[in-house]
Amino acid sequence: MSLIVQKYGGSSVADAESIKRVARRVVETKRAGHQVVVVVSAMGDTTDELLDLAAAIADAPPSREMDILLSSGERMSMALLAMAIHEHGETAQSFTGSQAGMITDTSHGKARIIDVSPDRVQESLDTDHIGIVAGFQGVSSESKDITTMGRGGSDTTAVALAAALNADACEIYTDVDGVFTADPRVVKSAHKIDQISSEDMLEMAAAGSKVLHLRSVEYARRFGVKLHVRSSFSQHEGTWVLPGPDDTIALQEGEPLEQPIISGVAHDDSEAKLTISGVPDVPGKAADIFNLIAQAGTNIDMIVQNVSDDTKTTNISFTLPGADIEKSVQILTDNKEQIGFEELDYVPQVGKVSLVGGGMRHHPGVSARFFTALRDAGINIGLISTSEIRVSVITDIEDLGRAVQAIHTAFGLDADQEATVYAGTGR
Amino acid sequence: MSLIVQKYGGSSVADAESIKRVARRVVETKRAGHQVVVVVSAMGDTTDELLDLAAAIADAPPSREMDILLSSGERMSMALLAMAIHEHGETAQSFTGSQAGMITDTSHGKARIIDVSPDRVQESLDTDHIGIVAGFQGVSSESKDITTMGRGGSDTTAVALAAALNADACEIYTDVDGVFTADPRVVKSAHKIDQISSEDMLEMAAAGSKVLHLRSVEYARRFGVKLHVRSSFSQHEGTWVLPGPDDTIALQEGEPLEQPIISGVAHDDSEAKLTISGVPDVPGKAADIFNLIAQAGTNIDMIVQNVSDDTKTTNISFTLPGADIEKSVQILTDNKEQIGFEELDYVPQVGKVSLVGGGMRHHPGVSARFFTALRDAGINIGLISTSEIRVSVITDIEDLGRAVQAIHTAFGLDADQEATVYAGTGR
Repeated sequence: MSLIVQKYGGSSVADAESIKRVARRVVETKRAGHQVVVVVSAMGDTTDELLDLAAAIADAPPSREMDILLSSGERMSMALLAMAIHEHGETAQSFTGSQAGMITDTSHGKARIIDVSPDRVQESLDTDHIGIVAGFQGVSSESKDITTMGRGGSDTTAVALAAALNADACEIYTDVDGVFTADPRVVKSAHKIDQISSEDMLEMAAAGSKVLHLRSVEYARRFGVKLHVRSSFSQHEGTWVLPGPDDTIALQEGEPLEQPIISGVAHDDSEAKLTISGVPDVPGKAADIFNLIAQAGTNIDMIVQNVSDDTKTTNISFTLPGADIEKSVQILTDNKEQIGFEELDYVPQVGKVSLVGGGMRHHPGVSARFFTALRDAGINIGLISTSEIRVSVITDIEDLGRAVQAIHTAFGLDADQEATVYAGTGR
Repeated sequence: MSLIVQKYGGSSVADAESIKRVARRVVETKRAGHQVVVVVSAMGDTTDELLDLAAAIADAPPSREMDILLSSGERMSMALLAMAIHEHGETAQSFTGSQAGMITDTSHGKARIIDVSPDRVQESLDTDHIGIVAGFQGVSSESKDITTMGRGGSDTTAVALAAALNADACEIYTDVDGVFTADPRVVKSAHKIDQISSEDMLEMAAAGSKVLHLRSVEYARRFGVKLHVRSSFSQHEGTWVLPGPDDTIALQEGEPLEQPIISGVAHDDSEAKLTISGVPDVPGKAADIFNLIAQAGTNIDMIVQNVSDDTKTTNISFTLPGADIEKSVQILTDNKEQIGFEELDYVPQVGKVSLVGGGMRHHPGVSARFFTALRDAGINIGLISTSEIRVSVITDIEDLGRAVQAIHTAFGLDADQEATVYAGTGR
């Protein structure tokens, strides 16, 4: 019998009616012949409301207590869902993260999973129950305290359980139909991707796609879990995110399908760009700069270094989260003399557009087509960054939408064009 | 160093402001030189709201899941209280019922405590922390499931912890100043009792006094815990409920105080009365009747049997919770032939007034004064029931308030009279 893990987020369980809707879906899945484990988030905005309550009480709440507070949200929704399933004559048992064997480190608020031992969940399935697990939480192996996993925690719980239970699929229910070739709010002609390799999905998530959290895609990739991202409001197939060797995706064993060269176009409007010019061209200067940035707690994305005109100094540019621009500018300015740079400029918001596709490894025309499309659309390119399966550029923020559309069309991804670009067509 | 367990109910932790107020009180207690353990209920009406949510989802929710749902309320308030205490520069650690070692049976929704092993709480105290424990919940030793304890559960948690930790006192915080000689809403001249034996308090609670739950008083009595019932809105001393041998209450070792003969007057307006007349006077008939009532799930309070006029049959009257009158009448009526009684009458609501006082064991004038006072007030007496330290009568519901006042005055309990009646005065 196949086993499916289903994850429902906050908006899917926002109130009594929604919970009943989810229960119907879960029961249908079981009656279609599957074993089912359901991972739930807290109802609606509960987590944010609990954060507000904590903020009204304390400026710097101890993280252990914060996790105890936040984890109560999932406990409520899991118990209510179990009751709703029971009304259909099916039996469900709910488990906290701890009871489900989600063992984490002690990093309260952003705990990492170190082991999953879902014995009680397995027992529940073996005795013909539906298992329900509170997402977003685990227990610290050291301190035995409850921990929460940070953003994307419920998705990660679902994938980790699917891996540990050897599930046939992990369904992530959300309020869109799946992963699209570009954000449909930016590109009207974007269409839903039927299958995407987890490698490509990783790049899409890292490059700005918000449908799936990077962390859960990483986990699925590493442990070979098949993800199915779909809408909780319809019965349509969504997007399958499939782990597999390069260039092939197998929905079932032994059935390789042609992999499209290109999966889609991701964009990100949350970054700022900082340029430090006239940096003395001596060893260690870049290290000094990035150590300072790290001290400020800032994560850097793209980095570009070039010699400057006089060739005795270099210019270093990099992108970073827009929210971190002030403290980063501050720490560099405070240390200007020690580093010895001439000038520091920044743009508080830039656009980043990325083309993603595992197939570009073996198809050299991709970069050329990419830059041609941007030139033809009259879009200025700032920094460029590539990986084996991704090409990204920084644009002015005003140009971002047009850039995404131009790339989308140039690679035949528009819904009214011929399907996706396939290997071997030489396009 | 002395150890105090403090319990705060839902209205004491209803919102952020209230929680901060409780935190100040807890911190003051610690800084006055005590070790402190705090037991908290869920915020405000949270428990009732969760029950409503469950009712919107399921007609007959499974009890295991109901306990998981309900227990999340206390988890929220305990975490928030810990945060509020932390703001004062004190450290607090919060514990679920399970983590605090409250081991119960598996009766979900009405679990009984079978063991208390508060090792983690003790460790917390030993390392100079304030311990916070979620009230109302424990863990089943058999199934490892979370259980909740039913009404009065938080009080019971507090008393059980106080017993297991050998606390010097267990303070029960509420919204009245303490236990009164009668309900001040019924008897304006009622006054707060300074000390009462737990034996008397037990009778008061059983006879209708709502300030403390019967269960927690029982527990305190059995394990020798000193209770202090007081207001969370003032610093006044409340009522000490003290375990001790008959006739003496020792606030401190070796300091016996005179025990008042009478503690107070309790009343109850929640009962109905049922009379079965013409029951054949043969062995076993009473057993038949009470077995049927037990089958209907009804708890009986007072029972009176008398021979009837013809002395070949008997009349049996008893009181029961008003909510159970219909099903009790039903089951008796359905079995009328088999029991063979002639008539069944009932009064849906009666009054019950009780005089309570350990001293009445040794002072024979009490019953006489009691019935005289009622006669002088022109109050009809229905059933009579006595124990060593309590006299109770059933009255018409309309007479209940006057009956309470009459007894209160007759025994010198009115606030404008001379104090309480003391042993040896011959009154």
